[in-house]
Amino acid sequence: MRIEIQTLGDFARGAAFLGSGGGGDPYYGVLLAEAELAKHGPVELISIADLDDHAIIAPCGWIGAPTVSVEKLPNGREVIAGLQKLEAVIGGAVDAVMPVEIGGGNGLAPLVAAAKLKLPVVDADGMGRAFPESQMSSFNILGVSSCPAIVTSGDGSTVLIEGCDNLAHERIARGISVAMGGIAHMVEYPLTGREARRTAIHGSVSAAISIGAAVRNAQAVGVDPFEALFAALRATGTYRHAGTLFDGKIVDIERETKGGFSIGRATIEAFGSNENMEVIFKNENLVAKRGGTVVALVPDIITIMDRETADSITTERLKYGQRVRVVAAAAPMLLREAHALAVVGPKAFGLDETYTPVEMLNGWS
Amino acid sequence: MRIEIQTLGDFARGAAFLGSGGGGDPYYGVLLAEAELAKHGPVELISIADLDDHAIIAPCGWIGAPTVSVEKLPNGREVIAGLQKLEAVIGGAVDAVMPVEIGGGNGLAPLVAAAKLKLPVVDADGMGRAFPESQMSSFNILGVSSCPAIVTSGDGSTVLIEGCDNLAHERIARGISVAMGGIAHMVEYPLTGREARRTAIHGSVSAAISIGAAVRNAQAVGVDPFEALFAALRATGTYRHAGTLFDGKIVDIERETKGGFSIGRATIEAFGSNENMEVIFKNENLVAKRGGTVVALVPDIITIMDRETADSITTERLKYGQRVRVVAAAAPMLLREAHALAVVGPKAFGLDETYTPVEMLNGWS
Repeated sequence: MRIEIQTLGDFARGAAFLGSGGGGDPYYGVLLAEAELAKHGPVELISIADLDDHAIIAPCGWIGAPTVSVEKLPNGREVIAGLQKLEAVIGGAVDAVMPVEIGGGNGLAPLVAAAKLKLPVVDADGMGRAFPESQMSSFNILGVSSCPAIVTSGDGSTVLIEGCDNLAHERIARGISVAMGGIAHMVEYPLTGREARRTAIHGSVSAAISIGAAVRNAQAVGVDPFEALFAALRATGTYRHAGTLFDGKIVDIERETKGGFSIGRATIEAFGSNENMEVIFKNENLVAKRGGTVVALVPDIITIMDRETADSITTERLKYGQRVRVVAAAAPMLLREAHALAVVGPKAFGLDETYTPVEMLNGWS
Repeated sequence: MRIEIQTLGDFARGAAFLGSGGGGDPYYGVLLAEAELAKHGPVELISIADLDDHAIIAPCGWIGAPTVSVEKLPNGREVIAGLQKLEAVIGGAVDAVMPVEIGGGNGLAPLVAAAKLKLPVVDADGMGRAFPESQMSSFNILGVSSCPAIVTSGDGSTVLIEGCDNLAHERIARGISVAMGGIAHMVEYPLTGREARRTAIHGSVSAAISIGAAVRNAQAVGVDPFEALFAALRATGTYRHAGTLFDGKIVDIERETKGGFSIGRATIEAFGSNENMEVIFKNENLVAKRGGTVVALVPDIITIMDRETADSITTERLKYGQRVRVVAAAAPMLLREAHALAVVGPKAFGLDETYTPVEMLNGWS
């Protein structure tokens, strides 16, 4: 499959949903990718199954505040510099790139490198959604080292991080991104084809594109975009359950910025009844409670969407009075295992709730 | 000359004075160096004149909050890792180490690497005193690049910074040191023997040792330690003027932490008169005003000392009621040139005053 300029809208729409309210606005990722694809032509998307065991894969993404990315424009130099430095450190060529996370703007991030360097993008990522920190990744959960990692900015600054554990790496890279002006390009968790097959979330790029296309098609022919979304999610095999948690109007929104996170809660009231839903977020949506009862929990995907257009609304864009549907989807299996939940489950976000799969909480078959 | 365990006390006392109230407490530097010298024997101090043109010199120091250094003990691994990484990057062996700054705790920093790796210490540094930021350095002023620079911590984390200008380097390294827990080892401004001769402050290590010894000897034989200090400073040829600015008791002290700096002012009242002196500091002492008139300005050295023992008091240890002498010394010539003052003069610290040499302000011959 090839990713063309025409594919970008669907990719962005799907990535926005998988971002669970976080991961940044994909609109900006579309603009960047569009410019590169217009210049260099389409990008090849390859299946993880087709990777040579010894192929070198470089996961790429932007680290920092999504709000800053709109003001501080990357110039492409940081992308090239990061990959070239990785090649110098490992003493070999990078064979393919991959998103570090599929949700939000970062899903589209590796398209810049892929187009510029004529590299294929692997149809996989390390989160199957968006998470706020780099160690919240299947690569980390399954024992891949984040190092050597390279953080670069458009002014030529190139920082190589080596020898630290994956948590220390996250702290250091975060500090560097702040010092670089709030946003930087990162290459991390470099891995071989064999390691990628064992540790990545397979098929997530094509999943994002297909669910984006399903919603677009439904809108074009005037059928229910939510039903189309759920069917497309289930068809991916990765997101095996999906459904509506609540339908209503945002009647209250609390939001504060603490420790670099956007933390808050949205209260949504049903139409014509006083039933309500509360969604708690920390960059991404973490918990949804209906009438005080938990009906979805991280790492399952919880996304608040416009109830007419089925557009995903990121947590920073939630506003009083918006008419929304709260939608959930099962997280990829790999994130639901016990050792994974320690890294990406409710406890990792300081929540007391015990993880229960969204399809069990809601009686979805 | 060799630096032995017996030399460390004098070295620390001299470095504390040259720290101008900042640069961290040298006591900790003494403990670290003592342990290494006890294990590996004395360290050779070599003149900058004896360096081969192509010798590779690695300036070393600790970056971060001095207060943290006392709680987070280095283990020596960070020092070795930093120098080894530099050797790998430049593809050659390091021939000698050097302090990045001579003031405070960092004056003694390279002794750890020197003892462990059997390398000589060059009798020179990049500041001739202490400054709060790494670009406030003669290396930067005279066009040496801070990169490649390596920031390391005791847990094995190694971060290589390349390709950025010296100001961006400071911001990035500062961010990394915070992420590493508040203190880290840094190798920066690697330079050749020829570059070191052109850009370093010559003789500052032996200067620190000699002024420390002069004060110690004066105390031992019961003569005025301040006169001994001034004579020793003048004898270095680097600090050509020195004298007392004020003698009195601290009657007011304001201090706040802002943007990672300790900012404040001390008011000192003369004994038996209401004449007073105000010393304004930002980590280091920056301005001394007697009765509202400026009598010393950064980059000249301003140090507040115990009026009995002639011990230097760092800005974080200033307290109400301390009986002190405020002492000043001329900065090394290299820091007083116009292009240097743009980097280390009053304007670089946000002060309105125009720099005038301390000996002119006080009529010292």
